[in-house]
Amino acid sequence: MEDIEIDELADPELDDPVFIEGLPGVGHVGKLAAEYLLEEFDAELVRRVYADEFPPQVNIDEDGVAELTCAEFHAVDVDGTDLLVLTGDHQAQSNEGHYHLTDVFLDVAEEFGATRAFALGGVPTGELIEEYTVLGAVTEASLADDLEEAGVEFREDEPAGGIVGVSGLVLGLGGRRGFEAACLMGETSGYLVDPKSARAVLEVLEAVVGFEVDYAGLEERAEEMEEVVGKIQEMQNQQQGMPTGDDLRYIG
Amino acid sequence: MEDIEIDELADPELDDPVFIEGLPGVGHVGKLAAEYLLEEFDAELVRRVYADEFPPQVNIDEDGVAELTCAEFHAVDVDGTDLLVLTGDHQAQSNEGHYHLTDVFLDVAEEFGATRAFALGGVPTGELIEEYTVLGAVTEASLADDLEEAGVEFREDEPAGGIVGVSGLVLGLGGRRGFEAACLMGETSGYLVDPKSARAVLEVLEAVVGFEVDYAGLEERAEEMEEVVGKIQEMQNQQQGMPTGDDLRYIG
Amino acid sequence: MEDIEIDELADPELDDPVFIEGLPGVGHVGKLAAEYLLEEFDAELVRRVYADEFPPQVNIDEDGVAELTCAEFHAVDVDGTDLLVLTGDHQAQSNEGHYHLTDVFLDVAEEFGATRAFALGGVPTGELIEEYTVLGAVTEASLADDLEEAGVEFREDEPAGGIVGVSGLVLGLGGRRGFEAACLMGETSGYLVDPKSARAVLEVLEAVVGFEVDYAGLEERAEEMEEVVGKIQEMQNQQQGMPTGDDLRYIG
Amino acid sequence: MEDIEIDELADPELDDPVFIEGLPGVGHVGKLAAEYLLEEFDAELVRRVYADEFPPQVNIDEDGVAELTCAEFHAVDVDGTDLLVLTGDHQAQSNEGHYHLTDVFLDVAEEFGATRAFALGGVPTGELIEEYTVLGAVTEASLADDLEEAGVEFREDEPAGGIVGVSGLVLGLGGRRGFEAACLMGETSGYLVDPKSARAVLEVLEAVVGFEVDYAGLEERAEEMEEVVGKIQEMQNQQQGMPTGDDLRYIG
Repeated sequence: MEDIEIDELADPELDDPVFIEGLPGVGHVGKLAAEYLLEEFDAELVRRVYADEFPPQVNIDEDGVAELTCAEFHAVDVDGTDLLVLTGDHQAQSNEGHYHLTDVFLDVAEEFGATRAFALGGVPTGELIEEYTVLGAVTEASLADDLEEAGVEFREDEPAGGIVGVSGLVLGLGGRRGFEAACLMGETSGYLVDPKSARAVLEVLEAVVGFEVDYAGLEERAEEMEEVVGKIQEMQNQQQGMPTGDDLRYIG
Repeated sequence: MEDIEIDELADPELDDPVFIEGLPGVGHVGKLAAEYLLEEFDAELVRRVYADEFPPQVNIDEDGVAELTCAEFHAVDVDGTDLLVLTGDHQAQSNEGHYHLTDVFLDVAEEFGATRAFALGGVPTGELIEEYTVLGAVTEASLADDLEEAGVEFREDEPAGGIVGVSGLVLGLGGRRGFEAACLMGETSGYLVDPKSARAVLEVLEAVVGFEVDYAGLEERAEEMEEVVGKIQEMQNQQQGMPTGDDLRYIG
Repeated sequence: MEDIEIDELADPELDDPVFIEGLPGVGHVGKLAAEYLLEEFDAELVRRVYADEFPPQVNIDEDGVAELTCAEFHAVDVDGTDLLVLTGDHQAQSNEGHYHLTDVFLDVAEEFGATRAFALGGVPTGELIEEYTVLGAVTEASLADDLEEAGVEFREDEPAGGIVGVSGLVLGLGGRRGFEAACLMGETSGYLVDPKSARAVLEVLEAVVGFEVDYAGLEERAEEMEEVVGKIQEMQNQQQGMPTGDDLRYIG
Repeated sequence: MEDIEIDELADPELDDPVFIEGLPGVGHVGKLAAEYLLEEFDAELVRRVYADEFPPQVNIDEDGVAELTCAEFHAVDVDGTDLLVLTGDHQAQSNEGHYHLTDVFLDVAEEFGATRAFALGGVPTGELIEEYTVLGAVTEASLADDLEEAGVEFREDEPAGGIVGVSGLVLGLGGRRGFEAACLMGETSGYLVDPKSARAVLEVLEAVVGFEVDYAGLEERAEEMEEVVGKIQEMQNQQQGMPTGDDLRYIG
């Protein structure tokens, strides 16, 4: 396998598509939001991206079939607007990996004619919350106005330390390429998978992009995701105690 | 040394060989199973793979002779069927390393004409078990039938989080190359080296590939392996306390 | 983005400029000192350096605008002497990254005609201190005299273990390129951001380079920096408890 | 700087030199032994090896002059026999780095016509010891005889897990290049720097290579080394508590 391989599965003509990034991060907010869009609207798988920057692993589906770690692009029609939605189970596993993969993701977005992008994620509040605010960051100040109208808050010094990972680089590298991009971060109070936070983020997207989402299935979707995530954590704890072949060596 | 070097030690003609991957992992199940095949049947060493992706170390044999870390391919005749068995003491030490090395392993397998593969490993149960089940994963759904007939279980959401490392990539990368591959994971209850789990895995292999194994020596083999593994862990604990040259620096 | 990209924002003719390195390190001493020079004197942004060696993240300014991690070079006129001042929020994130980035920084310095350099940093004393001494290291023994006259102390075996990171490499790699370079390390007693230590370092620079600094604003500048730094630490602690998508996998 | 740079400082004709590797490791045994040879005999510095695989740091000598991390080769005349002695303060900092650097070290050894090598190191016993045994490993069984005559012990399964780092690779990679190499590991009971263990190793070298060492200064040399090593550890502990610029980021 080449360092990065892209499978081209379909090539629909998209009309000024909006690139939506929903890879995993804090609270799985962006992932849940993006995957919910794939459920609720007509979604066509257009690209699969494989990379040695991803963890070296396969996912097992319900038939026991193994699928190599990858990120997927779907073309999604939301009430007449085209979205190009990026989803996956993992981010890159190294600093350089984040840069290289995000560059590849932006290449794909450019290939489909996207000039606008939204990176979706979560912000930990560290405590239970009543109101689910969405914090924002943009590639240029003028983009903040529409977002503020949609209820997004731009707070000085938040998020402190900036935004790390693909969501940050979609803005950082995307901005340098001329994308108009925004990062929408739903406050989340610590649930493994937070549907209220994902909904707050989707409501902003609805307002600024111009479409409507039926949220009936979101809670259930979040529960499914939480079950998988919980199971994985459990297995991981079990595994900590078990020695594997690679930990056994003498340093001379 | 090149980044990856392959010593070609023999080039027998193999007839539709089945590639068996038995590198170390949880419970040393795959390693024990694969190395037991080398003991019980006629095995010819055909390839040694050295790589800077392996830990930078040498093994010492009983005569005090040092051998550079490598993975080995043996051609093994099991009651008339050819196997190409991969064994070794280590996996790759980095994410990219796993991808690159597994690609090289699959190159070798293809070179000998293999189109089918079994990756052998263990699954931790986190508790003592009575019945030693073998869980499975496959590159395509149709492969599951024969395996289920041989007693392999395909449980939804198990293993949770997928399969990491060379066993996963044999399916992930192998599948993309057209291999028909399966991962057989013997449940193991936490022994350093579990002969009952290795036996359960070998019994599946016997059934689907078509050969018979004499298990008389497996327990003893497991005990030898456990002794080495235990000693290594002991030395490692001793070593934790001893400072080595590289830990001493001032960060300015 | 190329592995390392340099934006050329201005190309003033500088007269025998002195290269000042003020990237973050212990106690943020060098960073505070260098950034204070940018505040107090006429500073012109000449270069921005982006690299996949930097953390994959963006900083958010007070308008919510994201800026990709980078290092900046400013040309600064200090009472008739030209300085070329390097500042930023991060160092490289890997060993090789430190070497490669410092090489690039020295390339830029050479491009502007610099032959002298000062790397600014801090030394932890591990206890509260009364007198703020500046320790020194140089590329050649003859450079120590002027520095000792300015009050810099050269103590045998301090800093023990040498100097790690860009400050050390400015001397190590710079020295091999023919730079006359010194590292000035202000003793610091453990404050997140220590203005007294930064001042001690700037006073040495004043003496040896020949300019005068007004310290009225330094305390305030330190407090601003400390607030940001403190907030970041707080958020980080919150985040430790929150699972992100990448920690969930089964090792087989 | 190129990834690896070698400064050629002298090119004496050496007669069938024996390559001695004494980089830091457990108990600093090899380092102390090798550096003591440089003190006791006529030693000429012939090569300096710089690499981005080394830690990115500089050492400070007693005049405050910074020296970029490197490894050094000295040609040493021991009672008529030529040795080519490799010393330094650090090993490579990554797996691939160990492979690449050891390859470079062996290149230099070959350049000077060496065909035999001794890698010197320590083995932790985990308890106080009375008798200072030297354990051995070799590239070929026939080399063990002379070593056993000199008192070296070849114990089955020791060191358990093999030998990691440059000492192991001198045998592993050196053996593949046709070197006759042995690793001599002095048992050490946990001192930071163990002169008794270093002496035991040197005594083996004396016997098999054919020269005599005056041990009068070894104890003192060990104490000097221990003082530096101790100071470094102390500073490191102080530093753990101090935040540096790079730890501050929000993961989104």
